[in-house]
Amino acid sequence: MNHFLSRNSVDELKPLLEKARQIKQNPFEHATLGKNKTMVLLFFNPSLRTRLSTQKAALNLGMNVIPLNVSQAWGVEFEDGTIMNFDKAEHIKEAAAVISQYADIIGIRTFSGLKSKEQDYGEIVLSQFVKYATVPIINLESATVHPLQSMTDLFTIEEYKRKTRPKVVLTWTPHPRALPQAVSNSFVEWIKKTDYELVITHPKGYELSPQFSKDCTVEYEQGKALEEADFVYAKNWSSFSEYGKIISKEENWMITAQKMALTNDAYFMHCLPIRRNVVVEDAVLDGPNSIVIQQAKNREIIAQTVLSELLKNKSKF
Amino acid sequence: MNHFLSRNSVDELKPLLEKARQIKQNPFEHATLGKNKTMVLLFFNPSLRTRLSTQKAALNLGMNVIPLNVSQAWGVEFEDGTIMNFDKAEHIKEAAAVISQYADIIGIRTFSGLKSKEQDYGEIVLSQFVKYATVPIINLESATVHPLQSMTDLFTIEEYKRKTRPKVVLTWTPHPRALPQAVSNSFVEWIKKTDYELVITHPKGYELSPQFSKDCTVEYEQGKALEEADFVYAKNWSSFSEYGKIISKEENWMITAQKMALTNDAYFMHCLPIRRNVVVEDAVLDGPNSIVIQQAKNREIIAQTVLSELLKNKSKF
Amino acid sequence: MNHFLSRNSVDELKPLLEKARQIKQNPFEHATLGKNKTMVLLFFNPSLRTRLSTQKAALNLGMNVIPLNVSQAWGVEFEDGTIMNFDKAEHIKEAAAVISQYADIIGIRTFSGLKSKEQDYGEIVLSQFVKYATVPIINLESATVHPLQSMTDLFTIEEYKRKTRPKVVLTWTPHPRALPQAVSNSFVEWIKKTDYELVITHPKGYELSPQFSKDCTVEYEQGKALEEADFVYAKNWSSFSEYGKIISKEENWMITAQKMALTNDAYFMHCLPIRRNVVVEDAVLDGPNSIVIQQAKNREIIAQTVLSELLKNKSKF
Repeated sequence: MNHFLSRNSVDELKPLLEKARQIKQNPFEHATLGKNKTMVLLFFNPSLRTRLSTQKAALNLGMNVIPLNVSQAWGVEFEDGTIMNFDKAEHIKEAAAVISQYADIIGIRTFSGLKSKEQDYGEIVLSQFVKYATVPIINLESATVHPLQSMTDLFTIEEYKRKTRPKVVLTWTPHPRALPQAVSNSFVEWIKKTDYELVITHPKGYELSPQFSKDCTVEYEQGKALEEADFVYAKNWSSFSEYGKIISKEENWMITAQKMALTNDAYFMHCLPIRRNVVVEDAVLDGPNSIVIQQAKNREIIAQTVLSELLKNKSKF
Repeated sequence: MNHFLSRNSVDELKPLLEKARQIKQNPFEHATLGKNKTMVLLFFNPSLRTRLSTQKAALNLGMNVIPLNVSQAWGVEFEDGTIMNFDKAEHIKEAAAVISQYADIIGIRTFSGLKSKEQDYGEIVLSQFVKYATVPIINLESATVHPLQSMTDLFTIEEYKRKTRPKVVLTWTPHPRALPQAVSNSFVEWIKKTDYELVITHPKGYELSPQFSKDCTVEYEQGKALEEADFVYAKNWSSFSEYGKIISKEENWMITAQKMALTNDAYFMHCLPIRRNVVVEDAVLDGPNSIVIQQAKNREIIAQTVLSELLKNKSKF
Repeated sequence: MNHFLSRNSVDELKPLLEKARQIKQNPFEHATLGKNKTMVLLFFNPSLRTRLSTQKAALNLGMNVIPLNVSQAWGVEFEDGTIMNFDKAEHIKEAAAVISQYADIIGIRTFSGLKSKEQDYGEIVLSQFVKYATVPIINLESATVHPLQSMTDLFTIEEYKRKTRPKVVLTWTPHPRALPQAVSNSFVEWIKKTDYELVITHPKGYELSPQFSKDCTVEYEQGKALEEADFVYAKNWSSFSEYGKIISKEENWMITAQKMALTNDAYFMHCLPIRRNVVVEDAVLDGPNSIVIQQAKNREIIAQTVLSELLKNKSKF
């Protein structure tokens, strides 16, 4: 693993999950692996969980961490050949190369703008960093995927599953603001490579990009999708076809205790932050089958697993 | 001590002050006590002294520190049962539980809004964090108290006092902006439990909340209050009865060299930042009896003392 | 060396450059020199390279680093005797003294306002910090000089020079915004004390302050200046005489491959960030003689060299 950008960065998942289990049991076992190594975290957008969990993971390995809020410091130009006489003070070529001088690993957080499908799904920011940096890059959520979250979700399902091939349902939920598709795209990308039964459910018009949902089962009736589910993964996303738009509110898609009763005593999952009584009823989120906090805890474990891999392999980079 | 929220968090003060004295003599004696422990500092408001001194204290103990400016990242919902379809993205239940996954101690800084007495004196932010976090909380100044400052003030008086029962005067001073009552409330709360002679002086209308000033001597004539004082603690606060208002400017309440001449060669104290020639004359602040910088230094010592206690007791938490 | 403020802070440069060479070969050799030492970095202006490279340098020495964005926290009063009843909450006397309680070294970044020549060239912010702080100060770029950058530039020339007395040309270049003279002033200040041949070239009206350019060769014809150059140092600056103004755009002063052909196969240098195809053509910046990234790398080496000196000498401070 040279970078950690998406599911494609991981060849063999099983040994990584095994490593994660060991890290969870003994997080400080390799407390000097990252000695004299520095990770720079670049936030083009605000972040809580990712920021804290990734920092904590790095500290567990003895690394130094320098977080930077990019928006406060900088306008970065991502296009080649531009005459830079307007608002952008530095080209990604210099920015990425310079940060690589001080960092052993660079983490990048950059949301989709939800304005141009081409720009978002082109992953301009992330791919330009990968092109011009000379050190490993970790994707801390990009325009279209959130691999640290998805690998965490998978690891959490592995911890809680009560049968070899659980039924996992990704359900669209209502939300007052238009949100990226990144978490959902990424969840599908990681889960569909397992032998779980995956069902995606959402109102018509909220189809995910075929790049991710190809070959997946889509069920437009939420109640039917939830039947016999072992895990319910709730998430809102905006429309892909009418790009970035809320095309219908569908408030009746909120996850309720009544709906959870249709499942096989399913666990409730969400990446957080979550809007109570919009995405999910209090009764579900506060109930015994909600494992959202355990998911959040596992963000640290997975970040540490990925960092360990990158540090180990860095000599080959 | 499970949390450090106010004077009530401390059972026996004497051993803590003794510990502080030892820490001041040898700040790096327990440089590994905080090994592999992480403190997250949440700032709902800007902070200089508290931010620096608490970080330094934690570093002296070998802890990791992750400071976060909350306002940049987040809208947190503090009410139960809300339908979160407006501006708040995360409920305190999740926020506090999630941060507890990554932090061994959480420090919280949150000012009073000075708009609603009920909200401020209900200490909603702090108390909700205490309720939903699963790790110790340190109050880095809340709506109504500032215990790290007050314990520091007390420790500083102990260092400088020239007699067993010094006369300590808390005097209101002018200020161009409406300020919280937290520092003054807290000072009174800590000092009135000692055997010092405490006198509070302020213009009529600036009475502190009886919750704090009950049983205290209040003298409305500043000159009379200052007579034979050993310590003069200056501070502005806005009205409690006409909540959060500046009800009179009273510029003649500024502390001057002439007024200090009424005292028993008193030391001048203030929590800083301080407005020169508004709160106090240059001549007093630059004079030999000003101990404001020594107070600031002691902020680190007291923070380290409190952190040591919380780290020591954490196994029982 | 008690502070690192400008070229004048350094008595003997040679041993420092030798030390820098050793640090570059083995950056972690003195990884405990800064143990239990804390550096506070105060940014009155945003910063990328300086922030990252100085932090990394300090971490290499085992120091703790606390960066602070001043603008978010504070209004600092720099004038004496003021009645502070307006927007400034703290006087530099208290601010500098208080930070000195928690910091072993203070780094300060403060740009010129480009409004008042007297204020900028008086270096009010930096000199007041030096006056009232009780620990060493490092200049992370001030209103008129940028010594960490200039010492880095000199060190980089030493690494790349192909003859004992290279010809070094500082050339003004176009830029859409009015920029400070600090980098150019400082470059001249450091280079003119070497035995290099230094030529400054710029359009008429862009003369640097005589305080820095006195005794230097100025050539108003860029092409002529570039002839036989071994190093071309490009930089924009605003007018000193018509203070802070862009008095002419002179877009034909951009550095091009054609112009570089006039030189003695010169290396291209710039402090970054750099505006492509405004300051310099892509062809030059992407060519084999561009050493801007190596310069950026050396920022860390020089910061570490300076920190090592300050830590070593601190007992004498």
